Amino acid sequence: MLFALDLIGTFVFALSGAFKGLKHELDWLGIAVLATLTGVGGGLIRDVLLGDTPPAAFRDERYFAVCLAGAFVVIIAAPRIAKRWNRVMVADAVGLGLFAALGAAKGAAHGLGPLGTLMAGALTAVGGGVIRDVLVGEMPAVLHKGFYATAALAGSAVLLVLGALGLAEPVQLLAAALVTSGLRFIALIRNMSLPRARFHPEPPSSLS
Amino acid sequence: MLFALDLIGTFVFALSGAFKGLKHELDWLGIAVLATLTGVGGGLIRDVLLGDTPPAAFRDERYFAVCLAGAFVVIIAAPRIAKRWNRVMVADAVGLGLFAALGAAKGAAHGLGPLGTLMAGALTAVGGGVIRDVLVGEMPAVLHKGFYATAALAGSAVLLVLGALGLAEPVQLLAAALVTSGLRFIALIRNMSLPRARFHPEPPSSLS
Amino acid sequence: MLFALDLIGTFVFALSGAFKGLKHELDWLGIAVLATLTGVGGGLIRDVLLGDTPPAAFRDERYFAVCLAGAFVVIIAAPRIAKRWNRVMVADAVGLGLFAALGAAKGAAHGLGPLGTLMAGALTAVGGGVIRDVLVGEMPAVLHKGFYATAALAGSAVLLVLGALGLAEPVQLLAAALVTSGLRFIALIRNMSLPRARFHPEPPSSLS
Repeated sequence: MLFALDLIGTFVFALSGAFKGLKHELDWLGIAVLATLTGVGGGLIRDVLLGDTPPAAFRDERYFAVCLAGAFVVIIAAPRIAKRWNRVMVADAVGLGLFAALGAAKGAAHGLGPLGTLMAGALTAVGGGVIRDVLVGEMPAVLHKGFYATAALAGSAVLLVLGALGLAEPVQLLAAALVTSGLRFIALIRNMSLPRARFHPEPPSSLS
Repeated sequence: MLFALDLIGTFVFALSGAFKGLKHELDWLGIAVLATLTGVGGGLIRDVLLGDTPPAAFRDERYFAVCLAGAFVVIIAAPRIAKRWNRVMVADAVGLGLFAALGAAKGAAHGLGPLGTLMAGALTAVGGGVIRDVLVGEMPAVLHKGFYATAALAGSAVLLVLGALGLAEPVQLLAAALVTSGLRFIALIRNMSLPRARFHPEPPSSLS
Repeated sequence: MLFALDLIGTFVFALSGAFKGLKHELDWLGIAVLATLTGVGGGLIRDVLLGDTPPAAFRDERYFAVCLAGAFVVIIAAPRIAKRWNRVMVADAVGLGLFAALGAAKGAAHGLGPLGTLMAGALTAVGGGVIRDVLVGEMPAVLHKGFYATAALAGSAVLLVLGALGLAEPVQLLAAALVTSGLRFIALIRNMSLPRARFHPEPPSSLS
């Protein structure tokens, strides 16, 4: 089941990477590269940080196959997908939830403490998107999009609490994914975001 | 022989990094930093992903020495090199071929499957250039330059096929490097690139 | 003692990340994310490259706690800190010195050669800042700020020399940190930088 969820998350993130490539007018292979790095990026970061190498995406061929399938779907069906853009955003929220839950669970299984587990969940969830946005020169979603990292952290926290309560792992994962995806989905609908600090300092230029 | 090829690839990528630094008007040390990260970047990514740490560049001093030599050559001989820019592009194509072949071979030796081996070859070949371009704020060559990743993937595929046919490793490496470098070289001359998807969607802004 | 120095360096880098987030008008969580990645980034790179995984920041909760504290301080006290911007720059110089010394010492303890040890020190020192600057779309400080990498390399070299002379580790670390922080501090005051190469080539566009 873990594996199936991981593949689903990989696929929806690959879709989001492929769309970003389309927006930046990349050619077909550029789209495939961006879809692949977006799809497997979060898992690569998670596995490298946990010392579980080669990462899962390199040990099981289906990860890359699923990324290429995502790129292919976007290349041949872009106009139809664009009309249903809302569904792409929902898919992205679903991927965020799955990856946060899986990342936090793997971190906890490696014996990380609570903050380390939260970070593992959040980095897994946002890693692919950060790679995607940095490569095309955009500010990463995690830094400015509403409730993006917040949702991933909240889901990871739910997994921690349910784990401490002794609930079965499938329940932990499902609840964590639902909380993350749900929060992100609500943020999308209401265009919510956290407050900003009010003061924007102009540092003196004497010391550069 | 593997080691000599790796050093040659490192040197030519260091040259390309140093040139990019010159273009962005970095000072001498900025050029040396960019040359070094470009030269060893692909190998660092490869070794970290395969769990072969510390990476080769940290175990053998000659990698960094070669990068610094590349930066030095560019700093003292920039005008003469700029006049022979075509040769720099050829050197970059040679580096791409060498790194694709070596990365794919190392991935295969670590027991990766076909897609994993292709990815190992491609990431090793393009990794240094991605780091270089991201650091100076340019769109990475791999996403939009003609036949860049395509060539690396094709060379890695050649290595896979020749390996499956049981040919000796030097033959595999040489053929893979020649195919990658050759394809990239042809793309340079003909200014070739893959087709783009024709439709550029404007996603509705209701859901951001 | 190593641990305390590492936490201090993490805290001051978290401050610098939080300030950068404020400058780019991120919301509170964006600031916390940027502060965290800046604070622990150099150590993550160091530990992943040395194969010491999960990295220290994932094994000891205090690293992330210190990063969040840094973000919190900046969010609630931004105007007052901005008035004392010089002190932030001094803190950044202190962090640079601590991380260069600790990174070089850890590299030497892992059996790296001289150049590898210098690189380990420099990457640890500048890694967090590179992540910070790339995420917000700025040219990384290490490529263009006066004496940034130079100072980290000089401190790492001091550690190497004192180690070869057989001095005790605390002495090595203190001297290395002081040299790096001191050089960076002098560069700040005098606005020093290394010379640039005079010639900026315009490569012919025939081969792109």
